[in-house]
Amino acid sequence: MKIGFIGLGNMGAPMALNLLKAGHSLNVFDLNDAAVHSLVGAGAKAAASPKAAATGVEWVVTMLPAAAHVKRVLTADDGVLAGVPEGTIIIDCSTIDPATVKSMAEAAKANGNTFVDAPVSGGTGGATAGTLTFMVGASAADFRKIRPVLQAMGRNIVRCGETSTGQVAKICNNLVLGITMAGVSEAMALGEALGIDAAVLAGVINTSTGRCWSSDTCNPFPGVLDSAPAARGYTGGFGADLMLKDLGLATDAAKFARQPAYLGALTQQLYQTLSARGEGRLDFSAVINLYRGIKVAI
Amino acid sequence: MKIGFIGLGNMGAPMALNLLKAGHSLNVFDLNDAAVHSLVGAGAKAAASPKAAATGVEWVVTMLPAAAHVKRVLTADDGVLAGVPEGTIIIDCSTIDPATVKSMAEAAKANGNTFVDAPVSGGTGGATAGTLTFMVGASAADFRKIRPVLQAMGRNIVRCGETSTGQVAKICNNLVLGITMAGVSEAMALGEALGIDAAVLAGVINTSTGRCWSSDTCNPFPGVLDSAPAARGYTGGFGADLMLKDLGLATDAAKFARQPAYLGALTQQLYQTLSARGEGRLDFSAVINLYRGIKVAI
Amino acid sequence: MKIGFIGLGNMGAPMALNLLKAGHSLNVFDLNDAAVHSLVGAGAKAAASPKAAATGVEWVVTMLPAAAHVKRVLTADDGVLAGVPEGTIIIDCSTIDPATVKSMAEAAKANGNTFVDAPVSGGTGGATAGTLTFMVGASAADFRKIRPVLQAMGRNIVRCGETSTGQVAKICNNLVLGITMAGVSEAMALGEALGIDAAVLAGVINTSTGRCWSSDTCNPFPGVLDSAPAARGYTGGFGADLMLKDLGLATDAAKFARQPAYLGALTQQLYQTLSARGEGRLDFSAVINLYRGIKVAI
Amino acid sequence: MKIGFIGLGNMGAPMALNLLKAGHSLNVFDLNDAAVHSLVGAGAKAAASPKAAATGVEWVVTMLPAAAHVKRVLTADDGVLAGVPEGTIIIDCSTIDPATVKSMAEAAKANGNTFVDAPVSGGTGGATAGTLTFMVGASAADFRKIRPVLQAMGRNIVRCGETSTGQVAKICNNLVLGITMAGVSEAMALGEALGIDAAVLAGVINTSTGRCWSSDTCNPFPGVLDSAPAARGYTGGFGADLMLKDLGLATDAAKFARQPAYLGALTQQLYQTLSARGEGRLDFSAVINLYRGIKVAI
Repeated sequence: MKIGFIGLGNMGAPMALNLLKAGHSLNVFDLNDAAVHSLVGAGAKAAASPKAAATGVEWVVTMLPAAAHVKRVLTADDGVLAGVPEGTIIIDCSTIDPATVKSMAEAAKANGNTFVDAPVSGGTGGATAGTLTFMVGASAADFRKIRPVLQAMGRNIVRCGETSTGQVAKICNNLVLGITMAGVSEAMALGEALGIDAAVLAGVINTSTGRCWSSDTCNPFPGVLDSAPAARGYTGGFGADLMLKDLGLATDAAKFARQPAYLGALTQQLYQTLSARGEGRLDFSAVINLYRGIKVAI
Repeated sequence: MKIGFIGLGNMGAPMALNLLKAGHSLNVFDLNDAAVHSLVGAGAKAAASPKAAATGVEWVVTMLPAAAHVKRVLTADDGVLAGVPEGTIIIDCSTIDPATVKSMAEAAKANGNTFVDAPVSGGTGGATAGTLTFMVGASAADFRKIRPVLQAMGRNIVRCGETSTGQVAKICNNLVLGITMAGVSEAMALGEALGIDAAVLAGVINTSTGRCWSSDTCNPFPGVLDSAPAARGYTGGFGADLMLKDLGLATDAAKFARQPAYLGALTQQLYQTLSARGEGRLDFSAVINLYRGIKVAI
Repeated sequence: MKIGFIGLGNMGAPMALNLLKAGHSLNVFDLNDAAVHSLVGAGAKAAASPKAAATGVEWVVTMLPAAAHVKRVLTADDGVLAGVPEGTIIIDCSTIDPATVKSMAEAAKANGNTFVDAPVSGGTGGATAGTLTFMVGASAADFRKIRPVLQAMGRNIVRCGETSTGQVAKICNNLVLGITMAGVSEAMALGEALGIDAAVLAGVINTSTGRCWSSDTCNPFPGVLDSAPAARGYTGGFGADLMLKDLGLATDAAKFARQPAYLGALTQQLYQTLSARGEGRLDFSAVINLYRGIKVAI
Repeated sequence: MKIGFIGLGNMGAPMALNLLKAGHSLNVFDLNDAAVHSLVGAGAKAAASPKAAATGVEWVVTMLPAAAHVKRVLTADDGVLAGVPEGTIIIDCSTIDPATVKSMAEAAKANGNTFVDAPVSGGTGGATAGTLTFMVGASAADFRKIRPVLQAMGRNIVRCGETSTGQVAKICNNLVLGITMAGVSEAMALGEALGIDAAVLAGVINTSTGRCWSSDTCNPFPGVLDSAPAARGYTGGFGADLMLKDLGLATDAAKFARQPAYLGALTQQLYQTLSARGEGRLDFSAVINLYRGIKVAI
C-alpha cells in the first residue's frame, strides 16, 4: 500500500523502516534532510512538503513531537489536508492532548477524511523491533481498517474507544507511571536513610502491595536491578524530559476537565526540578537523585 | 512452647489462636475482657497484667495499635520487662516507628532480653488463615530462633536486616502503596472525566508501565475488578484510617531522617481529608471518592 | 485622540467608558452586540471587525479573556494588524502568558507597530472607578507615550521593564496571592478545629509575621472582616475561576522556564477542586470551603 | 517576686535576665552549667533540679526546646510538680503541641496547680530587648494575674482563649508564615527566570494583593531589602530548622484534628530538603535557594 509518512525522528524513522520492510511504499517528509536521506536509502520517496507526502496515498501516518507540529503539518497551506485524497484515514502516532485530537478530527472530517489517534508505548527499542503498543482512538470500523498498517510497526494494537481515547489512555498510564516512579524513589531513598539494604527493601516491595513496574522492572536505586537504567548511569530508557512533557499533558487535560490532579501536579514539579538541574536527558528514574545525596556544601 | 501474648485485637486474636492450634501454650493479656475470654475458651490462660503474661515464658509476642502502647506494655511497673525471664526474645508484631523500636531494643537489652520487630502484612484475612507476611528486623541468629514461632502465624517470613529494619520495610512498602493508590485513583478519575471506559483504561495500565497492585489487584474504580473492595462499596480490605496511620509513620520517619517525602506528605493529607469526610473505615481505595463526583450543590 | 478599543466585557466596557469620559474618540469592537450597543449609546462608534476598529486610529487598546483571543484579534485576516496605521502602539490589557506577549510583539514589529503588555489589577470596581493599577511591559520611551492613555483608566501606572514584564509581574503577584489565600484558609480552619476563636486568631496573624492581604483585608473566615467577601457569602471580589486561570498561567510560565512551582501547582489543584464543586464563581477566598465542613454523609 | 525559671537557652537566658532587671528574685535551672553560671553572675540563684527551682516560689516559668523536655521537667521525680507550692501558676513559654499542653494542664491541676501556655514570637532580639509578643492560653482571671510577670519580658501580651490556644495561635501563624515565605520564594525566583527585575517585582507585590510580611519585611531575594537576612547571607533571623519544627507541630496538630494541611505538609518537605542540604541554620528565607541556581553539573 502507498503511505505518506511525516516525522522521521527517533521514533518515526524506525517505524517508517518497518513499514518499508513490510512491503509498503512510502512518501516521507521531515524538516531534517539527513533523516529523509536515510529513509530514501532504504527505499522511500522524499516529498517536498506534508501536502506532497499525502498526495495520492492510501494512508497517512504522522509521528511528531507536539500538538503545534500536528496542527501545522495538517492544516498549513502545504499541509496534509491540502493534498490527501478524500476518504483517506490519517493515523497520528504523536502523543498530544485530547482536545487537539478532537479539533484535528473535525478539520479532517470537514476535508472528507478521518483522523485517528494512535499514540505508542515501547520506546525507540520497540519502534526498531516493531513491538510497539498502539493505543487507538477510532470507531470500531476504522480500527479494523488500520490494524494491518499498525501491525507492521507494533505487536499490541489496542482499541481504547472513540476518537481521542488513545491519547487519554496513554496520558493516564504515564500519569500513573510518573507518580509511581517518584513514589518508589521516595520510599527507596527513605529506606536507605533509615538503614535497610536497598535490594532487600525492593524484594519486600516487589512481593507485596507496593509492587509496580517502577519497582520490579525499572527500580531507580542503583544496584537493585542489573537491567534497569539505574545500573548504567540512568542512560537509555525513557527520558525525564519526555516524562515531564507527558505530565504536562496530563495536568493540562485535568485543567481542561476541571479534575484535580494533586499528585500529578506535584510530580510534574519534581521532574521540572530534575530538568532544571540539567538531568532531563537521563532516564526518568533519575528522579531519585532529588531524594539521595542532597547534602551540598554551603 | 510457652508464650506470653499481649494484644488481642482484630489482628492479635486470630494470630494467638493460630499459636494455640500449633500446640503452643499461651498466657494472654488484653484490656478488653471479652477478647481475653474468647481466647481462654480456646485454651489460653488469662494473665492479670503484661508482667504476669510474660512471667515464666519462653517467648513474648506483642501486637498493639501504636508506639505508646508498646512502650507502656513493655516498661510500665507491671509491664513485660518486669516479669520476663532473662534471655527471652520479645517479638513485637505491631506497626510502629523505627525510633521507638530502637529505644525498646535498648530497654530490653538493659533487662537482659532481645527485642525484635516483626510487623506483618496480609490483614485480618491473613491473620486468620495463618498466611501473614512477617518483615523481621533481627540478627541472623535470632531470626533463625524465632522463625518457627512466626511460621505458626504466617507463610512468608522475611529477614530485612538488623533491629528496626522490619518496620522500615513495612513503612516504605505502605508509603509506595498509599501513593500508588492515590495516583491510580487520580488517573482513573481523569480518564473517566475525559471519556474513556474505565475497564479499558485499567486494561491498558495493567499491561503497561503503569502496572501496579493498586491497579491490577485492588483497582479503586467500581466495576473494574469483581474481587476488589471497590466492587462491594469499599468494605473489607485495608482501612483508610490504617493507611493514614502508616503514612503518618512514614512522614515521621522522614522528618526524623531529614529526608523529603513530598508525595507521601501530600498523600497523607488526602487520606486525612477522606477520614474527615467520615470515610476512614472504608477500604483505602475509597480515596478515589476525592476525585469522583465532587460536584456539590452550593 | 482616536482609539480603537477591542473587548467590551466586564472589565473592558467600563474601561472604554472612562476613555470616552476623558474626551477620547473610540472605535469599538466586540462579538457581543449588546456590549457594543451600550458603548455606542455612550458615544463610541461601532466597528465591524478588529481591523475596522484599528483603521485610522492613534492607539489600539485590547482587553480580552485569553491568549487565543489576543492572537486572533491581532493576526486574523480581519484583525488589528491588517488595519492599524504603521507606527501605532497596541496596548494589550489582557492577562495572558509572557510567551504569547513576545510572539505578538514580534508580529506587531514585523507590521511596523509596537505591542505593549499592560495587564491590570483592581477588578470591575477599579475599572468603573478608573482606579486600576496597570503593570506595563514597555521601553521607557513607549511607557512615557502611553501613560496618559492609561491614566484615563487607572490611578497607578507602573513600568515593570521591557516587553512581557507587565505580565510577569501580574502572574507572580497572583501566584503569591493564590498561595497565601489557600495558606490562610488552611491555618484558619486548623485553628477553628483546635478551638481558638477565629477573630482572635486573625488578630494574632495580622499583627505578626503571618500578616498578609489574604488575612488582614480579605480574610476567608466568615465573621472576621465585615468588608470581606466571606461576610457576604463569598460574592463579589475576585472569582475563583479567575484565580484558577492565573495559577494556570503561572504554572505554564514555570513549565516554560523549567522552574519549579511546587506550591503554585498544588494550589492550582485546590482551585480546580473548588471549581469542580461548582464554586468557581464565588470569590476566591471560598477556597476555605475545602478545609471547613468537609464531613459528608456516606 | 520569687520565680523559678527553667531553660536558659538562646531565648530563656535573656528572658530570665529581664525578669532579674525588673527586680524579681530567680531560682534558675538548666542542664548547661555555663548558662546557669552566667545567670548567677547576674544575681540569680542556681537550683540543683527543676524541683529545687520550683520550691517555695510564687511563679514558675519554663522555656524549653520541645514537648518531651516540658513533660520531663514537669513530671519527673525531681520535676517541677514535685516541688512547686500548691496554687502556683506554671507559665510555659516553649512552643509545643496543643495536645501536650492539655495533658500537662491536667497533670498540674491534679497537683493543685495551673499550667498556662504562653509561647512567644520576636526571636532572640525581642527576648533581649524585652519586646517579645506572648500568645497566652489561660482563663481571663489567670491572664490578669500573670500579665505583670510577662510584661517584664515582652511588650505585647495577648490572651488567645483558654488553655492551649496560645500554642494554637503560634502554630497557625507560623504555618501561614512558612507557606507565604515559600510562596514568595517561588514567585520571586519565577520572576527572575522570566526576566523581571527583582526589586521591581517586590515593589509590585508589596503594593498589591500579594503583600505579606515575607515579601515586604523579610523578602528572600538578595538585594531587595537591605534589612532582611537575605542581605547578609541569610544569617540572623529565624532559623530554617525552627521553622521546620513549627511546621511539624502544625501538621501534627492537623493530623490530630483530622484536618487537611496540604500546603503546610508540602512546605514542611521543602524545609526538610533545605535542612538536608545543610542549610537548616540559615534564616528560613533561605528556602529560596531551593528555587534559584538549581542547575548542577552531572
